[in-house]
Amino acid sequence: MSPLRRPRSWPALCAALAFFCAFGALAQDDREPLPSWRETPTRAAILDFVARVSDPASDDFVPQDARVAVFDNDGNLWAEQPMYFQVLFAVDRLRALAEEDPTLRRQPPFSDVLTGGPAALAGLDEAALLKLVLATHTGLDSAAFQALVADWAASATHPRFGERFTDLTYAPMRELVDYLGNNGFTCYIVSGGGVAFMRAWAPAAYGIPPERIIGSRFQLVYQPDDAGGQLRRMPELAHINDGPGKPVGIQQAIGRRPIFASGNSDGDLEMLTWTTGGDGPRLGLLLHHTDGEREWAYDRESHVGRLDEALERAPDLGWAVVDMARDWARVFAFETPADTAREAAR
Amino acid sequence: MSPLRRPRSWPALCAALAFFCAFGALAQDDREPLPSWRETPTRAAILDFVARVSDPASDDFVPQDARVAVFDNDGNLWAEQPMYFQVLFAVDRLRALAEEDPTLRRQPPFSDVLTGGPAALAGLDEAALLKLVLATHTGLDSAAFQALVADWAASATHPRFGERFTDLTYAPMRELVDYLGNNGFTCYIVSGGGVAFMRAWAPAAYGIPPERIIGSRFQLVYQPDDAGGQLRRMPELAHINDGPGKPVGIQQAIGRRPIFASGNSDGDLEMLTWTTGGDGPRLGLLLHHTDGEREWAYDRESHVGRLDEALERAPDLGWAVVDMARDWARVFAFETPADTAREAAR
Repeated sequence: MSPLRRPRSWPALCAALAFFCAFGALAQDDREPLPSWRETPTRAAILDFVARVSDPASDDFVPQDARVAVFDNDGNLWAEQPMYFQVLFAVDRLRALAEEDPTLRRQPPFSDVLTGGPAALAGLDEAALLKLVLATHTGLDSAAFQALVADWAASATHPRFGERFTDLTYAPMRELVDYLGNNGFTCYIVSGGGVAFMRAWAPAAYGIPPERIIGSRFQLVYQPDDAGGQLRRMPELAHINDGPGKPVGIQQAIGRRPIFASGNSDGDLEMLTWTTGGDGPRLGLLLHHTDGEREWAYDRESHVGRLDEALERAPDLGWAVVDMARDWARVFAFETPADTAREAAR
Repeated sequence: MSPLRRPRSWPALCAALAFFCAFGALAQDDREPLPSWRETPTRAAILDFVARVSDPASDDFVPQDARVAVFDNDGNLWAEQPMYFQVLFAVDRLRALAEEDPTLRRQPPFSDVLTGGPAALAGLDEAALLKLVLATHTGLDSAAFQALVADWAASATHPRFGERFTDLTYAPMRELVDYLGNNGFTCYIVSGGGVAFMRAWAPAAYGIPPERIIGSRFQLVYQPDDAGGQLRRMPELAHINDGPGKPVGIQQAIGRRPIFASGNSDGDLEMLTWTTGGDGPRLGLLLHHTDGEREWAYDRESHVGRLDEALERAPDLGWAVVDMARDWARVFAFETPADTAREAAR
C-alpha cells in the first residue's frame, strides 16, 4: 500500500509527508551544491564525505546528532588582512574613547595607534596589543558592548575593498556552512577572536546562532541592578580560544568531538588534529591563501594567520587543502559577474 | 483555493503539510499537557505563559530563537537528598580508587569518608569537600571520566528508594521540559554541578543534548597523542556555576538572556532575577520541597539546596512557587499507580 493512501493517523501522514519533503529538498540541493567552488578534487572530497556520513545505507553513516562541524573564523570564514578585523574595530573604538577622554592621546601604546592608525599596530608587542584590546573591549556591560560592535559592523568599511567587513565573508564558505546544515550537520564557529565580538554580527552573516559561536572570553561578573542585573566585562582573559585552547573550548561548549573541522592557520592545528584523529569518518579542511589578485597570498611569513606546520602536516594527516586560487570560482559575493566569469575561465 | 488542491510546487506542498502536522501535534499536546501536575494555579501560570509567548497573534509573542529556558538540576530536575548525587558518586569513586591505592585509607579527609561513608560528609568543611571532589574528578581524560560516570549511573542506587539515581528525576519536570520543547523553546540545564558529570547521563534522562548542559568546570588541557589528543581534567576549578556564576555561565555558553528560568534554591537567585528582570514576557519558577512523604521537606535549614532569600523574594518578583505537595500529582515515575491515585485524591 502506498504510504499516502488512506493514512490511518496523523503520525503516518506526517512521516509520509516528511519523506516527500526531504526528497524534494534533496533533489533541489543536488542541482548545484557549492556553486562558488570549482569542480576540483577538493570540492569532490567534501561532497563525497558529506554523502558518506549522511546516507543511512553507507558504512560511514554518522547519526545526525554526532555530525558536528567546526569552523575557524578569521581568514577562514571571512578575510583577516591587512590585520584581524577585530583589531581594526579596536582602533576605531579607541578613537571614539579618545574623544571622550583626551588623556588617552598621551598614553602609549594608545598615542602610537591614534597617530599612526592601523599601520602602527605592526610595531606593537603582545603586551601593548593586549592593553589596546582590554581598553577597548572591557569595562562595560555585555549587551552594551555587543551594541557597539553591531554599530561598527553596520558602518565601518574595509581599507582595500571599501565594503563592509561583513561583506568580506567568503562566498564559498558560506555555501559550505549552508550545505552542511542542509545535510544534518550542526555548524559551530570556533575562533581565536572574542566571542562577544562575533556574536554581534556573525549570526546574520553566516546563519550560525550565538549559542554556536565559541571564542576567546574575558571574565564576566554579574552585578545586580533594578533590571535583573548586568554582566560586566572585566579586564582579564578567561579563555584564549586559540591553538590548544580550541579543543578545550569545543569540549567545554559542545561536549562532543567534531567530525569535520575547517581552518587556515597554525592556530587551528590542534582543532584539526583532534577532530580528524577520532574513530570513524572525519574530514579536515585547510584553507591556503594563494590568491594575491582576488584576496591575499600568504602563509609562513604572515604576521596574521601564519600557516606553516599545519600545511606541512596536512598530507600525512589526510586533510584536504583548499587552494583558494585554484578551488574557488568566486571569493566574495560583491565580485561582479564579469570578475566571476573571468575567474571561471582561468 | 485549498492549500492541498493541486499544489504547484514542493515548497507549497511542504508548507501545507507542515501546517497539518503542526496542527496534529498541537491537538495531541492539548489533550493533556503536564499530566503529573495537579490543576492548580501553578500549572495554569505555566500554560498561560507558554500560550502567550508561542502564539504569533499574541502581544506577548516571542520568536522561537529567543524562547530560551534554563533549568537548575540538583533538587530541581532530580532529587538532591540526603546529599548531592554527584558527591555520592565521589564517595563510590573514592572507594574504587582506594582499592588501587590503599594509602588513601590513611589520608584525611579520605580516611573519614572511607570509614564513615556518605554520613561522614556532613562533617567535612569546604576545603575537605573540594579535596574529595578533586581526587575523584580530575587527573584523567574527559572521555574516560564520562565513561566512569556513565557506568556509575547505570548501576548505583539511591539509599532510600533503591532505584537508580537517574530514576530519581522528577516526572513533572521531565514533562515540563518536553512541553516547552514542543512549544518551540530550547531548554538548557544550568547547574552548580559538574558539566562532565551531567553530560554522562542527563541527555538520556531528559532529552537535553550535551551542548545544552552548562555547569561547573575544571580546567582542561589539550595533550597531543597518536589518536588526535586527549583533554585532561586538571585539579583546578575553571568556573563555579552557582549563584552569580549562573548568569555568567549562561551568557558565555548561550549569549542570550533566557525568558524562562526554573530553580529551587538560593543558588538560583541570580539566574531567576536576571531571567525575569528583562523586558517582555518572562516566567520564573521556584520549586519548594514541601513533601516529606513522597520526597523530602526542606528549605531554610537544609545543608543541601538551601532555600531562603529566593523564597522570600518570590512574591515581589512575580515568580511562581511550585509547592511540591500541592502541585504535583506524581513525583517519580517509579511510583505505583496506587500511590498516584492516592495522591490524586488528596
